[in-house]
Parts: sequence; structure tokens; C-alpha cells
Amino acid sequence: MSKKIPEGVIERLPVYLNCLMELKQDGCVTVSSKRLGEFTEINPAEIRRDLARFGTFGKKGVGYNTDILILKIKHILGSDEHHRIAVVGAGNLGSAIVGYDGFAIHGFSVSAVFDNDATKTGKKIGKLEVSDIKSLKKIIKEKNITIGVIAVPAAEAQNIANLLVEAGVKIVLNYTPVIVTVPDAVKVHNTNPVKELLYTLYYLSGAGNKET
Amino acid sequence: MSKKIPEGVIERLPVYLNCLMELKQDGCVTVSSKRLGEFTEINPAEIRRDLARFGTFGKKGVGYNTDILILKIKHILGSDEHHRIAVVGAGNLGSAIVGYDGFAIHGFSVSAVFDNDATKTGKKIGKLEVSDIKSLKKIIKEKNITIGVIAVPAAEAQNIANLLVEAGVKIVLNYTPVIVTVPDAVKVHNTNPVKELLYTLYYLSGAGNKET
Repeated sequence: MSKKIPEGVIERLPVYLNCLMELKQDGCVTVSSKRLGEFTEINPAEIRRDLARFGTFGKKGVGYNTDILILKIKHILGSDEHHRIAVVGAGNLGSAIVGYDGFAIHGFSVSAVFDNDATKTGKKIGKLEVSDIKSLKKIIKEKNITIGVIAVPAAEAQNIANLLVEAGVKIVLNYTPVIVTVPDAVKVHNTNPVKELLYTLYYLSGAGNKET
Repeated sequence: MSKKIPEGVIERLPVYLNCLMELKQDGCVTVSSKRLGEFTEINPAEIRRDLARFGTFGKKGVGYNTDILILKIKHILGSDEHHRIAVVGAGNLGSAIVGYDGFAIHGFSVSAVFDNDATKTGKKIGKLEVSDIKSLKKIIKEKNITIGVIAVPAAEAQNIANLLVEAGVKIVLNYTPVIVTVPDAVKVHNTNPVKELLYTLYYLSGAGNKET
């Protein structure tokens, strides 16, 4: 499955989906690749190519039906099911992720947050109580959590990744700058501000020249 | 420039760079595309194709020189220069970004953090004092800051984007779920946990099947 579709396309689908959700909330029934391109800064021709892969064709001059396209992309990504998340680390980053208000609309929910700091365990972040990391495996299995987020200091990242894998999560979202290794059966996605900035930085010079 | 090289390639370069920095710290003088592939979960053949675009060829059986490849990718991305960052929002997320320890090694530094909350301004996050948002334009110009990070509630995102653009930043890193619009001269990169999760989610089923 992941072989058939280029990674670049899969990386763009969530960008389209986020944009489509926004437009839907603004009451847009249809959306053109041109409009999607304006919001996502992706070439409309590339957007049409991407969506055509999935047999999704917009009507010339009308565009795509927003609802249908949202359902289609959600189905491709698998986000039409509900997925539970465990956040490890109840510091600033962990608290920010727990408090993030964009999960529900995409079928995600943070079901547990863990820390090893006794001054944090038992306290609440929003409605969620911080659990002792010692109970991580038990709670992740009980709550059928499939996604683990690493929001701990870099030095702890691999240990936490190991714990999450043992607990049976299928996806690890790693916010630390270090690379963590996991079995093939688990998918790691490394994300940190530097990675995002380096990617964007490439366009800085080009963008600068265009400035008026 | 951004036309010549596919966006997918540019998205992978920071992933390679992060990985190479790690390996360099571990004392690896050379690295093979196979090894890079293991760490990054990118197909080694794709890695070789990507790097060959820039005239960077590894030696068969030896691989790439880590230092040279790091310099080359940094140069392509423009991260061989120093770039100053302003973070807007001194809440959990903003504080986490200000405290992130992976910037320096890539030539970034957080030079200012802003908030409109009088209970936060004047307080310190690490060594950096939170400035009143009223002084955003003045400080960004004075400190020659080119990158602005939006870490405020979603409802405020577009207002902050406008402020950052007026102040003259070239890159906006938007951590809110809403889409912000800016002039062509400025590059926005939207990033949030959902986007990362949706992308990774696609591989969940495939990964699950491989589990032993």
C-alpha cells in the first residue's frame, strides 16, 4: 500500500484535508484546485494529479465537492476511524499537545498523558490527569491506545520509544531532535521545529526576491 | 529555484540532515544510503536519487562523507547562515519552542518571544524575557529577525501573521490549526500534531500487518 503511492503524495493529503475542513467550516460546498493551491501553496496542477490518483476528479469550472473530497481523503488516510493518543511528558510541549484543540475534528483523542515527575503526576492538564509512567503499559493496553507521542527530554527519547513499543502502540510521534529506532511493525514520525524550519528555509531566498 | 527541485525532495533534505548530524555526533565519518534509509525510513534508492540531483555521489561500499554531505545539504537549504526566530505566544507551546535545544546546531536562534498577557510579559523563559506584543515590529526589525513562529490560540493566528508580515519576517511557522494567508513574498509553513499524525496514520495498517 505504502509502496503504490509516493510518500510526497501522502504528505500532501493531510495538508489538503486540513484546508478542506477549514473551507467546509466557512461554508464552501465546492472547492477548485486553484483555491486549494492558494491556501496550501501547492501547485494546482500537482493537486489535480494527486487527487486523480484516487479517482477523484473535479468538475471543470466547478471544482471538487468539499464533503465528498473530505470523506475520500479521510478514508485513504484511515482517519475516518477513531484513534487514541498517549502523550509521554507533561512539560510545556506535552501540555501543549494535550491541550491542542484540533484533534477531535480529525477523529483523534488524547486518552492518556504520562510523566515520571511526582510533582506532575496526579495533576490535571485540562480534563486529563497525568499518570505515572510506571502505569504506561497497563493504561495503553486498557484504553486501546495506538499512537504514542514522545514529548520528553532528548536523552529519554529512546527509552520512551521502547516503552511505547512494548505497550503495543503502532505509531510513534517523536518531538525530540534525536532519532529513535523501533521495530518495522511500528511507524515513527520525527517532527521538530528545526525540521519544519529547514524545509521552509529553502524558499526564503526565492520568497525574498519576490518581495515588493 | 523552488521550481527546479520537487517539493518532496526539499522535504526530505532536512530529514537527511537531522540524521547526518546525529550520525556525525556518534562519530560516523561516512554513511551509506542503506544506513540513512534505516534511520529515516526512506528507500535508499530514493535517497541516492535525491542526493544525485545535487551532484553528490556516494562511493560504492563506502557511502557518503558525513561532513561533506552535511555542508552540502546545509548550503542547499540555506541553513549554513544564521537565522533569528521570534516566537509569538508564551504559553505552553511557545515556551516549549523557546526552550527547544535543537536550534543552535542548525544555525537558528530564538531571539525574541512575545505575548499580550501582562502576567507573562517581563517574565523569563530560559534566558529570554517575554516582550509585550506591542513592541513586536520594533524588536523584529532591530534584531533582524527573519522567522516568526505563531504559537497563539487559533482565533488570533491571522492577526499575528499580519503583524509578523508587517514587521518584515520572511518565514511564518504556523502551529495553529487554522490556515493563515500572507503575501507571496512570505512563506508560510503550517504545522500541527494532526497534520503529522494524519500523514503517519496512512502507514498504520501496513505497519500493523508486518507486526510479529
